[in-house]
Amino acid sequence: MEVKLNDYISSKQSRVEEEIKTYFDKLEVPQKLKESMIYSMEAGGKRLRPILLMASYEAYGDDVSKALSSAIALEMIHTYSLIHDDLPAMDDDTYRRGKLTNHKAFDEATAILAGDALLTYSFEIISNDPLLSDSEKVEVIKKLSKSSGPKGMVAGQILDMDAEDRAVTLEELETIHDLKTGELLKFAITTGAFLGNATKKQLTALEEFSYYLGLIFQVQDDILDVIGDENKIGKAVGSDENNLKSTYPKLLGLDGAISRKDEYVNRAKEALAKADADISVLSALTDYFSQRDH
Amino acid sequence: MEVKLNDYISSKQSRVEEEIKTYFDKLEVPQKLKESMIYSMEAGGKRLRPILLMASYEAYGDDVSKALSSAIALEMIHTYSLIHDDLPAMDDDTYRRGKLTNHKAFDEATAILAGDALLTYSFEIISNDPLLSDSEKVEVIKKLSKSSGPKGMVAGQILDMDAEDRAVTLEELETIHDLKTGELLKFAITTGAFLGNATKKQLTALEEFSYYLGLIFQVQDDILDVIGDENKIGKAVGSDENNLKSTYPKLLGLDGAISRKDEYVNRAKEALAKADADISVLSALTDYFSQRDH
Repeated sequence: MEVKLNDYISSKQSRVEEEIKTYFDKLEVPQKLKESMIYSMEAGGKRLRPILLMASYEAYGDDVSKALSSAIALEMIHTYSLIHDDLPAMDDDTYRRGKLTNHKAFDEATAILAGDALLTYSFEIISNDPLLSDSEKVEVIKKLSKSSGPKGMVAGQILDMDAEDRAVTLEELETIHDLKTGELLKFAITTGAFLGNATKKQLTALEEFSYYLGLIFQVQDDILDVIGDENKIGKAVGSDENNLKSTYPKLLGLDGAISRKDEYVNRAKEALAKADADISVLSALTDYFSQRDH
Repeated sequence: MEVKLNDYISSKQSRVEEEIKTYFDKLEVPQKLKESMIYSMEAGGKRLRPILLMASYEAYGDDVSKALSSAIALEMIHTYSLIHDDLPAMDDDTYRRGKLTNHKAFDEATAILAGDALLTYSFEIISNDPLLSDSEKVEVIKKLSKSSGPKGMVAGQILDMDAEDRAVTLEELETIHDLKTGELLKFAITTGAFLGNATKKQLTALEEFSYYLGLIFQVQDDILDVIGDENKIGKAVGSDENNLKSTYPKLLGLDGAISRKDEYVNRAKEALAKADADISVLSALTDYFSQRDH
């Protein structure tokens, strides 16, 4: 691996933090709402989605500034989905990444509204980005609304809830993950490349790449729930074991899950090779996703 | 009043129902999510917001088709806000318009997700409308995200919650209503006129008009809570009396509230007169808002 990935990730994280700060500094809204939005936006996420979007942009384009509003909008959507997912009526979680969940730190009503606000604000910041042309804005909004809405992430969430307490096949499991997690990763990869002026053919290869990347992400999540370090993950391991929820290790065994993941890494890299660009960072990020310990 | 307003409203309502059906027929999403979204979209709303948008369009433009995606998107946003507002953590309502609220007909998690889905889908349908240019789409999305997000409706909701159990001044009350209700009405009026190619000067007059229209709407809401007919309103009257919530009748007395409303009707019509267009429908709608009994 020639890229110094950790340096790359740190520098992009700083850029994301800085940009988030800029967007919230200028947001004039009721104090409690603002605090609740910022609380979850700054709750220690690794910024993987915006980093993927920027890396995909840089495989084709020059100055990454053009990709920033989309990257931050994506992080807002991801964050709103976590806030709503953690609610008592959904996963009923008290902690996330070692901090109180939004509705525990504030209250349920505020958490619902902070989620709604982040979701809506994400479209506002794209539509107001002076660096994007109107046609670019429209294309990004089309992609973002589709991948995060009822045909994308929200569909995945409702299917996931339905599947929670029954056995599902590997095929069903992958459909759920593709919608719930994969769609936003696909948005990251394809939007970055689109804004960097990738061709249709390149975008098709990247879509295939992002499909496998999403699955790698999920298999590793399931694996970490079995063999991960609680202190690093920030939540209890073994939580999947205590319910009927289907996971890769349950369906394939731990070894089977690991070799399945390796297979997906290979397929992801094959797709990436077809993307006809400087893929060193995206390739290194694939390994990072596959081997992450939290 | 020369316009046969009831006929106008009925014909526009049919157009809205038809259009909603079209958007949901082609929406391929998980069955339960779709049912929950449709349940609230078809729960007997009067479609006042989309009708206002279309009426405002027709004051300037010809074929109203061009305004339809914005009108339906607006109704989706309004509907999502009602679903989330009714949740146990918010207003905890069991009925709305005489039907079970979404989380009672389905469950809380589904209601949260149906709201999220409607909100997101609203941006998707605007960004995909073949009748709009890219610059029109961007402008509509700017307006919609601003008026419904943390600077608009969501701000109003959080301020409203904070004000629920304490006395507020008339000024605070009007700020809350302007954000919570007025912003979407302003969106309706200005977006319709914008798509109909109104000038900046005309749009400024209409913004003033919509400000008063929002207040009229709210004063009448408060008045109906005192003297309305439960069967027509679809909920118990007198509910405001049983808590500390500030209302126009409480702050000004019933007669004072009525004369305040009349004053706003005059100001709304003065603003409308400056809008330099065929304002007969908008003027009739103002009276309709002011005198509605449910």
